[in-house]
Amino acid sequence: MKTVHVNVSRGYDVRIGQGLLQDCGRAIRSVTDASAAFIISDENVFVPYGRTVMERLQGAGFLVDHYVFPHGEQSKNLRVWGDILEAMCAAQVTRSDVVVALGGGVPGDMAGFAAAAYQRGVDFVQLPTTLLAAVDSSVGGKTAVDLKGGKNLAGAFHQPLLVLCDTDTFRTLPDRELTSGFAEVIKYAVLEDGLFSALDPVPSGEALEDVIARCVSIKNDYVSADEFDRGCRALLNLGHTVGHAAEACSGYRLLHGEAVAMGLAAIARASAVRGICSAETADRIVALLQRYNLPTEIPFSVPELRREMLRDKKRSGSELNLIVPEAIGRCRTETVPVGDLDAWLRDGGVS
Amino acid sequence: MKTVHVNVSRGYDVRIGQGLLQDCGRAIRSVTDASAAFIISDENVFVPYGRTVMERLQGAGFLVDHYVFPHGEQSKNLRVWGDILEAMCAAQVTRSDVVVALGGGVPGDMAGFAAAAYQRGVDFVQLPTTLLAAVDSSVGGKTAVDLKGGKNLAGAFHQPLLVLCDTDTFRTLPDRELTSGFAEVIKYAVLEDGLFSALDPVPSGEALEDVIARCVSIKNDYVSADEFDRGCRALLNLGHTVGHAAEACSGYRLLHGEAVAMGLAAIARASAVRGICSAETADRIVALLQRYNLPTEIPFSVPELRREMLRDKKRSGSELNLIVPEAIGRCRTETVPVGDLDAWLRDGGVS
Repeated sequence: MKTVHVNVSRGYDVRIGQGLLQDCGRAIRSVTDASAAFIISDENVFVPYGRTVMERLQGAGFLVDHYVFPHGEQSKNLRVWGDILEAMCAAQVTRSDVVVALGGGVPGDMAGFAAAAYQRGVDFVQLPTTLLAAVDSSVGGKTAVDLKGGKNLAGAFHQPLLVLCDTDTFRTLPDRELTSGFAEVIKYAVLEDGLFSALDPVPSGEALEDVIARCVSIKNDYVSADEFDRGCRALLNLGHTVGHAAEACSGYRLLHGEAVAMGLAAIARASAVRGICSAETADRIVALLQRYNLPTEIPFSVPELRREMLRDKKRSGSELNLIVPEAIGRCRTETVPVGDLDAWLRDGGVS
Repeated sequence: MKTVHVNVSRGYDVRIGQGLLQDCGRAIRSVTDASAAFIISDENVFVPYGRTVMERLQGAGFLVDHYVFPHGEQSKNLRVWGDILEAMCAAQVTRSDVVVALGGGVPGDMAGFAAAAYQRGVDFVQLPTTLLAAVDSSVGGKTAVDLKGGKNLAGAFHQPLLVLCDTDTFRTLPDRELTSGFAEVIKYAVLEDGLFSALDPVPSGEALEDVIARCVSIKNDYVSADEFDRGCRALLNLGHTVGHAAEACSGYRLLHGEAVAMGLAAIARASAVRGICSAETADRIVALLQRYNLPTEIPFSVPELRREMLRDKKRSGSELNLIVPEAIGRCRTETVPVGDLDAWLRDGGVS
């Protein structure tokens, strides 16, 4: 088992290892005096793991209740989120109880924002069951739901008490989901030195635990320096500005990681064309994405992508901040006038 | 004009005076570089004041958009709140823009929570137009909406950039609304010394500005000592545990201040019966409430009130914390087992 400590206003441990769900009751009991635990999960995750988590929590003395919603991004909306809050009321969850987020990015984000808002904030614990959630959404305290007008547009900064990442749960992930998670891993490898070479061959077992711990540690560096995302934390959006737009264009049929892979490839190519990085750097990034069978061509047009990019949270007035690679291990922010966006997308290989 | 500075994590001024709306554009410009202002208001307030506020904001260089919803507590729900967030998306509000809450407690709470959640937090300014909002909800950063399961159960701590309380707006308040606001003023007078005697005769004009400033200043003392409501801030709930229950029993036909007046009277009587304060103290509190034509008898039964009180946010397990007066200017928390609640309510004059 690896442990990474996240240094935010109220710090917490991220533990990564096999079989952690089997001991989750005791681990959660060690960080809270709550009398009740309220599990929030989706159907795909609750069926295989819900019973274990409930039993372990009961065994650690928690009263346990739960809310389970249909799997998928289409559940990540204010209606389902409101249903969760009403279910918490009905279960008489109090301010001193604890919410347990069990699942991938959607349950994590929904449960985190429900915990942030319910009675203006109750504690929560993340039990990520996907690689993507383990390296990305379960760490750093960003929680959100989608609005009709765009993804992740309503939310809160709310840090968990503890993150337990049981790598055994990855075994039941569809290949496509596991692969999607590696897109975020590759993003970290482009942001910071020392990880890129560890990704070929594809890591598994203890090597995968090491890679996850390294990703969480990199994320911690950015999050602890900029908890509320007003500065350097923006670099974590490498690949995401174009990626989010592609994800939206697909009607969310693309997985998040697949869209991020497309965004990473596009921004790497555009950066090479503009002399921000070498052609070799761009080629290495694209090749590593392809090594994981991740998509690197965007099947949408420049006008389609532009329309979605203009909704981006990071936009300020008539400019957009893109994160660009200068080299493997070194990225920076490039401020791009909205009028130059089409040229950037074409340089990125979008037609 | 009076100014009270609120000393929280990010401090801000509360300005109280006549005609402040006439200069609101310049005042808001002095605290933000936002390019756009998004006004959130209700129909009763927006009709008389919306145009002035829009013009003044435009005059100060803001792009201005707005969302107006039907007046009343029944609008304070997740559906209307979601509509506000979607309207902010449609208006392309960015993270560096500013939300302007124009109205009483409901627009203030809704706008504050919308500002807290939209893109995980944008700045906002409060323009309270009721006495109740001026002395209570517009200061201290508590924002919320109601759930079906109870009042103010979903929300956030989100401090405004500035509060401008234009006392001219009180002139158009129905008598019942103004009177209701005085119930919160009387609450402050029971909590802290020096205000009780200033309330008879009924203050108006500059004397009223002084009273509001004193209330805000008292609230600041509690809020700055306990921004996130984990300790002494609970004392501000004097009269509210029973009051909220009465409000809920009435199906929200009672105004908040009317319900608080009933709660204050009940807790004062019960405290006298139990020797926590003298009979004279209880009599003085009840008499001052009556001086303002506020109701001091609760038209609901002990079982009806008990059912609502058990939903209270402040409840922890099998105990409830009631705030009780020991004397004018001195209150404390009394932890009451749920089993004793009926006796407390009967001692408070509930039948």
